[in-house]
Amino acid sequence: MSLSEIPRLSDLVAESTTRRSFLRDSALSLVIPAAGAALASCSKEGSAPPQQRGAATATAQQPVTGVQPHNSDSRLDSSVLKGEHHVGSSATGPATAGIASLAYHRFAPELPPLPSAHTQQLHFHAREAPIRIDDTTIIAGWTFEGDIPGPIVHTRVGDTVEFTLTNDADIPHSMDFHAAQIDPKEAFKSVVKGQSLTFKFTPKYAGAFMYHCGTAPVLMHIGSGMFGAIIVSPRESLPAARDFVLVQNEFYLAEAANGSRASDYQKMLNTLPDIVCFNGRPNQYVKEPIRVKVGDRVRFWVVSAGPSHPCHFHIVGEQFDTVYLGSPPGNSLRGVQTFTVPPGGGMIFELLCDVAGEFPFVNHGFGHGQKGAIGILLVE
Amino acid sequence: MSLSEIPRLSDLVAESTTRRSFLRDSALSLVIPAAGAALASCSKEGSAPPQQRGAATATAQQPVTGVQPHNSDSRLDSSVLKGEHHVGSSATGPATAGIASLAYHRFAPELPPLPSAHTQQLHFHAREAPIRIDDTTIIAGWTFEGDIPGPIVHTRVGDTVEFTLTNDADIPHSMDFHAAQIDPKEAFKSVVKGQSLTFKFTPKYAGAFMYHCGTAPVLMHIGSGMFGAIIVSPRESLPAARDFVLVQNEFYLAEAANGSRASDYQKMLNTLPDIVCFNGRPNQYVKEPIRVKVGDRVRFWVVSAGPSHPCHFHIVGEQFDTVYLGSPPGNSLRGVQTFTVPPGGGMIFELLCDVAGEFPFVNHGFGHGQKGAIGILLVE
Amino acid sequence: MSLSEIPRLSDLVAESTTRRSFLRDSALSLVIPAAGAALASCSKEGSAPPQQRGAATATAQQPVTGVQPHNSDSRLDSSVLKGEHHVGSSATGPATAGIASLAYHRFAPELPPLPSAHTQQLHFHAREAPIRIDDTTIIAGWTFEGDIPGPIVHTRVGDTVEFTLTNDADIPHSMDFHAAQIDPKEAFKSVVKGQSLTFKFTPKYAGAFMYHCGTAPVLMHIGSGMFGAIIVSPRESLPAARDFVLVQNEFYLAEAANGSRASDYQKMLNTLPDIVCFNGRPNQYVKEPIRVKVGDRVRFWVVSAGPSHPCHFHIVGEQFDTVYLGSPPGNSLRGVQTFTVPPGGGMIFELLCDVAGEFPFVNHGFGHGQKGAIGILLVE
Repeated sequence: MSLSEIPRLSDLVAESTTRRSFLRDSALSLVIPAAGAALASCSKEGSAPPQQRGAATATAQQPVTGVQPHNSDSRLDSSVLKGEHHVGSSATGPATAGIASLAYHRFAPELPPLPSAHTQQLHFHAREAPIRIDDTTIIAGWTFEGDIPGPIVHTRVGDTVEFTLTNDADIPHSMDFHAAQIDPKEAFKSVVKGQSLTFKFTPKYAGAFMYHCGTAPVLMHIGSGMFGAIIVSPRESLPAARDFVLVQNEFYLAEAANGSRASDYQKMLNTLPDIVCFNGRPNQYVKEPIRVKVGDRVRFWVVSAGPSHPCHFHIVGEQFDTVYLGSPPGNSLRGVQTFTVPPGGGMIFELLCDVAGEFPFVNHGFGHGQKGAIGILLVE
Repeated sequence: MSLSEIPRLSDLVAESTTRRSFLRDSALSLVIPAAGAALASCSKEGSAPPQQRGAATATAQQPVTGVQPHNSDSRLDSSVLKGEHHVGSSATGPATAGIASLAYHRFAPELPPLPSAHTQQLHFHAREAPIRIDDTTIIAGWTFEGDIPGPIVHTRVGDTVEFTLTNDADIPHSMDFHAAQIDPKEAFKSVVKGQSLTFKFTPKYAGAFMYHCGTAPVLMHIGSGMFGAIIVSPRESLPAARDFVLVQNEFYLAEAANGSRASDYQKMLNTLPDIVCFNGRPNQYVKEPIRVKVGDRVRFWVVSAGPSHPCHFHIVGEQFDTVYLGSPPGNSLRGVQTFTVPPGGGMIFELLCDVAGEFPFVNHGFGHGQKGAIGILLVE
Repeated sequence: MSLSEIPRLSDLVAESTTRRSFLRDSALSLVIPAAGAALASCSKEGSAPPQQRGAATATAQQPVTGVQPHNSDSRLDSSVLKGEHHVGSSATGPATAGIASLAYHRFAPELPPLPSAHTQQLHFHAREAPIRIDDTTIIAGWTFEGDIPGPIVHTRVGDTVEFTLTNDADIPHSMDFHAAQIDPKEAFKSVVKGQSLTFKFTPKYAGAFMYHCGTAPVLMHIGSGMFGAIIVSPRESLPAARDFVLVQNEFYLAEAANGSRASDYQKMLNTLPDIVCFNGRPNQYVKEPIRVKVGDRVRFWVVSAGPSHPCHFHIVGEQFDTVYLGSPPGNSLRGVQTFTVPPGGGMIFELLCDVAGEFPFVNHGFGHGQKGAIGILLVE
């Protein structure tokens, strides 16, 4: 192996979900018999449709039931499991229709500019839609505006958001903005198909807030894709920076119609996700990094949508000079390597990019982070 | 479906553990075949005794072993699993006796007033007792004073607590107050049946502190119900408020004698709980909300008893103006949507209730929160 | 049972991993049939080699597959599980060689003194080595300098560390210091067998920082032992104290050659560890406590290496007067019972030991803590 073949950090990260670089290493192949065979089967895997992948996996593993281990005494479990096998699934018809030619798109992480007016109207549609999150995975999603996560909203303390939800889906949905102080019994109530609901609110605190569908069971609605971030800037501007929004979420997958993958409620209750990622796609910012310039101050508005796990946010090769645990510009820590953003919460992480390089940002709880919560901040 | 039939948030929350509202929706029934049958079987479930529910569930699910998935290499596991099936269970005789007519009671969340004297005597009995935590579940509990959690204790920085533990149970128990600075080898040592131990302490810091039995294995003793909160007020009063205490805990259940449910040590080691709740009963404050008036300042003293999981505390439709991470009145954040209370820890969450409405308070890690850690703050 | 036989807290802790004290209690034996038999089988367990223990356990448990429950849809799983059974294992040849007579040693927790010079050279070798972590368990480790964790590094804000990594192992390894601000693509890149890489850095912030191998998959490299702590003191000294370093990590074990235990990648993805401990050995500071004097200020520099779980750090019978969440001497809380150190993070916990006694320090998330993350601070 020549020097030029030495794996670089970028390889490391880009291939972290396949372990091909790990298996490919010739020294290791010698030590571990059958690694070559494993590699061969891995390399075929990429082009197989998801269901076949699942089947092949089960075969390789032997007589596993295919049913997730579960906790049979859970009161929630029993009601779910008595139902038909796919009751706890997001794969309704509209969520899996016409997906053969569905394109992948990167989710733009840039914080949109503040609207110039002090009141902004927003109109979201709740609808089921298939989302391609990587080469081989299409999620039968429940969404706001057809994507996972929903659109990034940007407002300011004291400004007003007039929000309308229209439900295009067969089952009821609703909207819960963590940036609002409002009676949820009225504003966040469920809306049935074809109907709309409007409410308005004026954020009191700055920060990175989650929004999500709050219809029961909330776990299922968040877990199937109905979440996003609303960023509230303070009245007095924070230091000039490149502002990015990262929403971490988990996917819990089952097989579904037309080659798509449904969200599996039973797996959500078991809390062991298949994918954990930023802005809805595993490792998307490894494939297409977030780019900034040397000298830029960079500010990540990080929301953990869950539904269940925190994000232990860290940037390899960097440290945060400022982390806002509460409303900025106060409530901050200085000199932090990693801090935990709770599920349902948000925090703001700032650093000065005075060194050029490729800096992976990760969920440093690697049992989860390794499943896709890795990206690259490229400082040029 | 008319407008008046649109599910409201209170429905949403109240039915979150059964998913009946989710299944009941007619549109969904059309989309998901067999949902009707599932609903039928669900509706019978409520009246069946717990063991029969368990059996029915297993049948519906197919040839699942009934044994929790476990980690066979754990050094703890092996010692437990070599024993008889119920070794790691709380269901000793006294914990399951005479439960046929056992009544449910709501656990009062109000912080008791401070005693007028600067020294208070407390005498707790460790004893096994059955606790009805909802319509269908009776826990074979290990308790302080016959309830789960134990009594809320309220004291003040600089005051003295003289505490006596008498053990009425067959196995040794002990008491560990997190508010005390004291040699645990003496004060927190285990007491055998029929004996008593007295110690006293003077809290140095204000806060929401956990207490629990510290006898080995601690996991089993906390997990079986031996925990509670000791609230230490600062010398100078905090702003006037309605003060409530919420202790989150997990239950890990197995079947036990007389229709009760025992605590299962093996499940505790697997860390996937059946129930997660506030003050020992799933969704109790959904059924009977915590009521305050518009204009009230509300202060939640939140303790995560675990034994294993944090509480990601959040109130739907509200934000905390103040969260004390350490000893109040300092050590606070402002403008917080959600913050994590570690297992074995406590924090204080304040908000001004200037809007009327029904505000669900939740553990926003919904894989756990959905299992019962939801309540309603009703602002009238 | 006489008074002198009452279990003390030290018993409680020391025996927490075997549950023998729990089973041994005669009262309990009466209540739970077959406890005696369980005890008998437990007492044989200690002397059996690990593989036989595993086999016996499986037998006692009945027809369990022996395969860990897993999540068959994980994209990571499928690539791992299609391979040979031991592909995701650390048990390469050098990691299991010559272990019959391998001795146990306590990992010294004392913070080493600062070097007098403002530049220090460090030269670590990445190498596979067996590590005896208790009487019955030898880990087939991937290490820095032959131990788990690697050496404690101590430096100071503004000083320079010149670091060289030489890789003695068959597979590539690398070094990622969380205390460095540096381009990871160059400094933290992987090094193949027989080669070396040198870089230098000057820490900007004080704190307890993690270091680890960052080669993909990072989860496997951290999980197999390649981690440690680099402590950065501030320019102006903190209050005089007895300084100790605790690095919490998880082990996920499979059987391996020569009676050793390999790290199991599939288990890491399942996030349910077999052992959780401080400084690489379960309960080592219960067996041989950390000793200080009455009147000492004690400062624990706590790093959570993970790979996946936080440390909910608590000391029984004590409270922390100061916890530094960010860079000391600022960024602190006062009056804390328990605080969460994120995986991949570090925090500093201080207390004044003005009371003599035996104070267990624990991860108070006991589902994990009970698996070995318990030690004793002995104040004399």
